[in-house]
Amino acid sequence: MNAVRNHACRENAFEEAGRDAVYRAIFTRRDVRSHFRPDPIDDAVLARLLMAAHHAPSVGFMQPWNFIVIRDMERRQAVRDLFLAAREQELPNIAEERQMLYRKLKLEGICESALNLCITCDRSRSKGSPLGRWHNPEMDIYSTVCAVQNFWLAARAEGIGVGWVSIIDTEALKRALNIPDHVVPIAYLCVGHVSEFAPQPDLERSGWGARLPLSELIMSETFGGGGEDTLKDIAGKMRP
Amino acid sequence: MNAVRNHACRENAFEEAGRDAVYRAIFTRRDVRSHFRPDPIDDAVLARLLMAAHHAPSVGFMQPWNFIVIRDMERRQAVRDLFLAAREQELPNIAEERQMLYRKLKLEGICESALNLCITCDRSRSKGSPLGRWHNPEMDIYSTVCAVQNFWLAARAEGIGVGWVSIIDTEALKRALNIPDHVVPIAYLCVGHVSEFAPQPDLERSGWGARLPLSELIMSETFGGGGEDTLKDIAGKMRP
Repeated sequence: MNAVRNHACRENAFEEAGRDAVYRAIFTRRDVRSHFRPDPIDDAVLARLLMAAHHAPSVGFMQPWNFIVIRDMERRQAVRDLFLAAREQELPNIAEERQMLYRKLKLEGICESALNLCITCDRSRSKGSPLGRWHNPEMDIYSTVCAVQNFWLAARAEGIGVGWVSIIDTEALKRALNIPDHVVPIAYLCVGHVSEFAPQPDLERSGWGARLPLSELIMSETFGGGGEDTLKDIAGKMRP
Repeated sequence: MNAVRNHACRENAFEEAGRDAVYRAIFTRRDVRSHFRPDPIDDAVLARLLMAAHHAPSVGFMQPWNFIVIRDMERRQAVRDLFLAAREQELPNIAEERQMLYRKLKLEGICESALNLCITCDRSRSKGSPLGRWHNPEMDIYSTVCAVQNFWLAARAEGIGVGWVSIIDTEALKRALNIPDHVVPIAYLCVGHVSEFAPQPDLERSGWGARLPLSELIMSETFGGGGEDTLKDIAGKMRP
């Protein structure tokens, strides 16, 4: 009986090579800013990436996303100007001893990447039946973020780099892309072939921050609750 | 020259079988409510899933997440009571002609799954240097959602089902799990082995909603902008 049950469980798992490929995408995905190449992305590849995004989970099967493909260089330069202005505004809010390092960081690849993609959330798409959103109306935004992550991981498997530009004034971006009031731009992405995927995140390599130990992030039953010692022990010894 | 360049691009892509495994995880992932089995999850498997979540992108390398593992059945029943109350509150807000269908939907597996997991966002973890968050402070929440999606996809590859319970009062959930003010519970997940992954999303099969055509979600240059005809044509003919 247990043998049958365990067999049934294993049947739903991927074979080892497939499972390893999923983890490889997750562990080697990078927020790419420095290594874009100008080579165009094949439309068939881009369509696959968008299909991956479109199969994200969505609250109430709402599928609130749209995908704006931005190729025009003038528009991209205008968006880059928004980034540059926003970076100047953000800088004084960074701890003083870190401002010099902040200035050195490359934080976008808007004009070097093959194309830009803005993934938006249309908040009106529940059409009067907000299943799963009455208590938590932000769930449609979370769904859209899941679509971004699907896109990012599929892109990694295709050898395509993705960088998320979050240093930008949202209202100015909405004006630049004619985005209406009821739609929220969730992610402005730089997308393109890359010369390499860096072995570490840029912010780790530059010394901006260190990877936190996973075992210290695990809690049991309540926030801050101790326990799960076996799980923490395994997590503490694990290398991705 | 072009050959060299194309070769370099291809080198960053996964081999075909690995790429297909990533898409398989994305396309066959389900929001599981009905098919949980009681079999426990091996701690080594759970540690791998959490490591996958921990390697999500995070704004400013903030890693704002914590993982509360909830196994105690009394606590889970208390959370399920919160769900049941929230569902009653949500129901009158659903269009009247859909309320009967809404009542029939199974929307959680809190007590049938092997364990529950609450993934939270600690908003204070930027420590005075909110890189990428000064204009968009919600970016830490988006990072945490990316961790949820990493967890979900890795779980699919491991044959583990995940269901996200969003019909719940957040403040009541915070009290039940002793979550402090500066921490936001982003996702309350039911996690466990499953008898099957359904071929379609439950809400599609039940007739609650239909999959939107991807080609209609693609825009060019600006919101609502026409164009990208080749891309839309390929997307329109594609099957996941």
